[in-house]
Amino acid sequence: MNEALFTANNVWMLVATVLVFIMHLGFASLEAGFVQRKNTVNILFKNAMIISIGLLTYCIMGFNLMYPGLNEGGFFGFSGFGLSMPEGDAGGIAYADGGYTYWTDFIFQAMFAATAATIVSGAVAERIKLESFLIFATIFVAISYPITGMWKWGGGWLNAAGFYDFAGSTLVHAVGGWGALAAIILLGARKGKYTSSGIKPIPGHSMPLAAVGVFLLWFGWFGFNGGSVLSADPVAVSLVFVTTALAASAGAIGAFIASYLLFKSHDLSMVLNGILGGLVGITAGADLMSPTEAILIGAIAGVIIPVAVVTFDRRLKLDDPVGATSVHLVCGLWGTLAVGIFGAKAGLGQLWVQLYGTLAIGAFTFAFAFGLMYLLKVTIGIRVSEEFEERGLDVSEHDMKAYGESISAEPAGYELLVK
Amino acid sequence: MNEALFTANNVWMLVATVLVFIMHLGFASLEAGFVQRKNTVNILFKNAMIISIGLLTYCIMGFNLMYPGLNEGGFFGFSGFGLSMPEGDAGGIAYADGGYTYWTDFIFQAMFAATAATIVSGAVAERIKLESFLIFATIFVAISYPITGMWKWGGGWLNAAGFYDFAGSTLVHAVGGWGALAAIILLGARKGKYTSSGIKPIPGHSMPLAAVGVFLLWFGWFGFNGGSVLSADPVAVSLVFVTTALAASAGAIGAFIASYLLFKSHDLSMVLNGILGGLVGITAGADLMSPTEAILIGAIAGVIIPVAVVTFDRRLKLDDPVGATSVHLVCGLWGTLAVGIFGAKAGLGQLWVQLYGTLAIGAFTFAFAFGLMYLLKVTIGIRVSEEFEERGLDVSEHDMKAYGESISAEPAGYELLVK
Amino acid sequence: MNEALFTANNVWMLVATVLVFIMHLGFASLEAGFVQRKNTVNILFKNAMIISIGLLTYCIMGFNLMYPGLNEGGFFGFSGFGLSMPEGDAGGIAYADGGYTYWTDFIFQAMFAATAATIVSGAVAERIKLESFLIFATIFVAISYPITGMWKWGGGWLNAAGFYDFAGSTLVHAVGGWGALAAIILLGARKGKYTSSGIKPIPGHSMPLAAVGVFLLWFGWFGFNGGSVLSADPVAVSLVFVTTALAASAGAIGAFIASYLLFKSHDLSMVLNGILGGLVGITAGADLMSPTEAILIGAIAGVIIPVAVVTFDRRLKLDDPVGATSVHLVCGLWGTLAVGIFGAKAGLGQLWVQLYGTLAIGAFTFAFAFGLMYLLKVTIGIRVSEEFEERGLDVSEHDMKAYGESISAEPAGYELLVK
Repeated sequence: MNEALFTANNVWMLVATVLVFIMHLGFASLEAGFVQRKNTVNILFKNAMIISIGLLTYCIMGFNLMYPGLNEGGFFGFSGFGLSMPEGDAGGIAYADGGYTYWTDFIFQAMFAATAATIVSGAVAERIKLESFLIFATIFVAISYPITGMWKWGGGWLNAAGFYDFAGSTLVHAVGGWGALAAIILLGARKGKYTSSGIKPIPGHSMPLAAVGVFLLWFGWFGFNGGSVLSADPVAVSLVFVTTALAASAGAIGAFIASYLLFKSHDLSMVLNGILGGLVGITAGADLMSPTEAILIGAIAGVIIPVAVVTFDRRLKLDDPVGATSVHLVCGLWGTLAVGIFGAKAGLGQLWVQLYGTLAIGAFTFAFAFGLMYLLKVTIGIRVSEEFEERGLDVSEHDMKAYGESISAEPAGYELLVK
Repeated sequence: MNEALFTANNVWMLVATVLVFIMHLGFASLEAGFVQRKNTVNILFKNAMIISIGLLTYCIMGFNLMYPGLNEGGFFGFSGFGLSMPEGDAGGIAYADGGYTYWTDFIFQAMFAATAATIVSGAVAERIKLESFLIFATIFVAISYPITGMWKWGGGWLNAAGFYDFAGSTLVHAVGGWGALAAIILLGARKGKYTSSGIKPIPGHSMPLAAVGVFLLWFGWFGFNGGSVLSADPVAVSLVFVTTALAASAGAIGAFIASYLLFKSHDLSMVLNGILGGLVGITAGADLMSPTEAILIGAIAGVIIPVAVVTFDRRLKLDDPVGATSVHLVCGLWGTLAVGIFGAKAGLGQLWVQLYGTLAIGAFTFAFAFGLMYLLKVTIGIRVSEEFEERGLDVSEHDMKAYGESISAEPAGYELLVK
Repeated sequence: MNEALFTANNVWMLVATVLVFIMHLGFASLEAGFVQRKNTVNILFKNAMIISIGLLTYCIMGFNLMYPGLNEGGFFGFSGFGLSMPEGDAGGIAYADGGYTYWTDFIFQAMFAATAATIVSGAVAERIKLESFLIFATIFVAISYPITGMWKWGGGWLNAAGFYDFAGSTLVHAVGGWGALAAIILLGARKGKYTSSGIKPIPGHSMPLAAVGVFLLWFGWFGFNGGSVLSADPVAVSLVFVTTALAASAGAIGAFIASYLLFKSHDLSMVLNGILGGLVGITAGADLMSPTEAILIGAIAGVIIPVAVVTFDRRLKLDDPVGATSVHLVCGLWGTLAVGIFGAKAGLGQLWVQLYGTLAIGAFTFAFAFGLMYLLKVTIGIRVSEEFEERGLDVSEHDMKAYGESISAEPAGYELLVK
């Protein structure tokens, strides 16, 4: 490996890192747009905290849980707390086949880690207790995400079994989706959503914010998938750009057509979630597909979206304000299976390992998340009071409003200090 | 070409690609900010669809229409449907003088293609039928844009004639502007804009959204112009950064001064459009200009903006809610001509070819767009009913509102499915 | 230096440039979110103008004031107006140790320059006269910022003394903060803020805008700090990414805990400013710190935020709508001193030079800004009339409203022209 090529590789990985970082603004905007005005500060607060908690816990323990570097084919490993840069070339040009440095490895992976918890925050919005959510997110991202991540990306048993997940349809998105599912089952629906007189829609408060969020997520996904090549390999990264872009586009068209056929309307939130569904769908095999295959995978993901949303919302009565389970769980499963159906690795054997791989990770994650959330439920509680929910979390948990006419612009309890 | 240099080149081209991608969020934000609240969902919907349609059609046929690779100096060529990666090095290191891969070539160009249609969407906002617009945009971006693009960038007759358009003042911006002009002539002004009692201003609903859009467009323009170097050549790309940034800045100052002299006010929308005018103006010759020349070109573009807006709006009574014709058509023409006036290629001969080149492309594009829109007008219609326009397109075409208190948070017609 | 490595270096520096550029959108969003609805257009206008003025003045004189290339160890130098690209390799591969070209050098530094003035704009928001602010900002960024910048980065006397400021905790942030402090002392508090019946909070009008701004600033900071390596050196840049990200995260946590202890509330604006405080804090030594040290520096900065905000707002009665003095001045001082306390250069000697270096720059900047603002105050005035302030600057200075129902969508005075 010569220095110039190493430098070019590392530059790309750092660019990919900042692109994945900005996905956290994408999630924050999307979720803020899809919640009610009265819960906007709360969701922004959670998103600002999650990325911070995620980066710190990944530094303290997550990275070394996910990449223990010890047990090839194993279930669990841990190489100690904190970061430890190998000295000299071992952490630099000789690290990771010259694709990037030790520090780049950490920071790129750390940006991924917080994503799983962010996915949960959208689903549980508007009714979860702030403290309980922060505790849940911290433990989920510090322990659960890295353990299942290690199974594949850390060289664990699923990697040995031939399971394939290029950039995380399962390892990131379905994992987040399973966490979300566990949480909303235990949490219950928002007050007034499912009533004796029918199902009441609760509209989000800002479609521009939601749209900004989706465009930013698509933007960041070029780093999420493109960086998962783990070098700047020109043909590989550019192919991933093409498949990623086409799957997202096809997701929009798929959702556009399906939601028109189903609802006779042009539903913006369906098209936006269709784009995300296409992106989640291509993520597991973005490096394996031809343009045509990427379009098919994306289009199917787009069609899945309105069907899944209706199923969760109407049939299963699981209240998910942003559609996180449809986008990340259902399309994450679809994308993982698609690796066995389309592209360079297609085949029954691969389909089988994709299926049990994703189910194994799902089972672990769901159990972990359910157990953790249940523990919180029976101890400190996970749900705000009815009165708090009615008034909105912005006022009841943060003593401020999202748009101007605040009850108090000062920090709540400011007077305590000033007096 | 060594591997490291090729990789660095390709990394830059992929970064430029994501920067051009985010311009689509810039357009979406800008247009959403400049329309009325009641048409916000509609404009966001159109922008989410256009980028998706644009990428797909460019994959299916646009790329091979624009770069047929056959007829040097010709008017038309087509190398078949779909993408076809040349095998081995021919699609990789040996492609495009080692500047980027075949896939990079496609995806970078594809991001450009949707831009032309996006420019139209702003001008026709608040009154066009969704279906008609989507059909128009699809055909415009799939056929018209690549054909005129081929005349220069695909090695066609204007390229042979010495016409110069570095990054698309004509090929992208004026083309979008001509399409917009044809469309608004056929479409007519918004209801209540030009009345017997005078011209009624219709203010946009969110200046922050508009400002976010302009900053994002400027941000993305570093990729739009910088990527048009078609490699990471250090001196060339960095010069383009300098000229691009200075022209945008000078555009702001030019519009600031001109609009103050004309209107005695500090008009934010003029300054924002002045930035865009400066960017469009420098685009044709961003690689040819000195910093001083870039400042002059940008400043003149900035001065053009308020004059052009007033001319279209008051003299010609052509209703363009976002000023797309002033920014993209007029400043696109200006930028194209400026190549013959300033910089390394200045001269009467060059000015002449710039003039007839841009007029030839303009004539084709205007005729194509006018014909297509006319066909739509006499068949399925292009304008929503007066009642729909009054109520706003969000409610009448999408059954939802942009901000919260939706008539129905559910997909319209949701109950059809649920019942 | 081989061509490939030079190209990779330069690509990174250009990417860093666009990242720093987008910080200006971050500032614009943040400041717009933290002001009242009625002053939104005004703050957006100022931010669009500042970046434009900053780039132009830096081209005209700032760059050559900051990097005169003459007097090693000196106090002042100037190498003439305008830009002058050294011919051939001297401006290309042989420039700046092959880290980047002459043009890259200029444009990267130019993006920094406007930042200092932007910091001021937040602090003086909602009451300063537009013209006075624009004059102040122009002179501040054209003269004051480059002179003190030269003291360190231009090889001046503080550089010779061993003062260390990697990416500008002092040279950019504290400089902006000192300017802000001088301005708000002369300007006075917003009407109705400090009354005989107590201190009245004046809440910002959009927390989503503020949050978007902070995420964009964090995003851009990877270029601000990462680009300050002045090459794409893989280990150095990736370490800077890690320290920057961890300090920001720790800043959020620090502010979260401190504001909870102080106010018994979960205050979003404190957490957002905590992130910024952490970023400002790590900036002076981002290349010197271990992950643990970065976390400590960021956490302390986060704790500083609520304390500083309360001190300025309550004790000192200095009205700063966005907290710019707390974030940029106080945390800028903290970050500068932290270089003497933590990391590779820690030591009493270093701490001493950090202290007098930052105070020297602070003294010059404060005196310059105070003098300039005072001159404006006694000549054209710096404060809008009480009536204008009451009505809001959007209406009184721009004749438009930020959200829709404009008094006049047309440029004010439009009728002058039309009649």
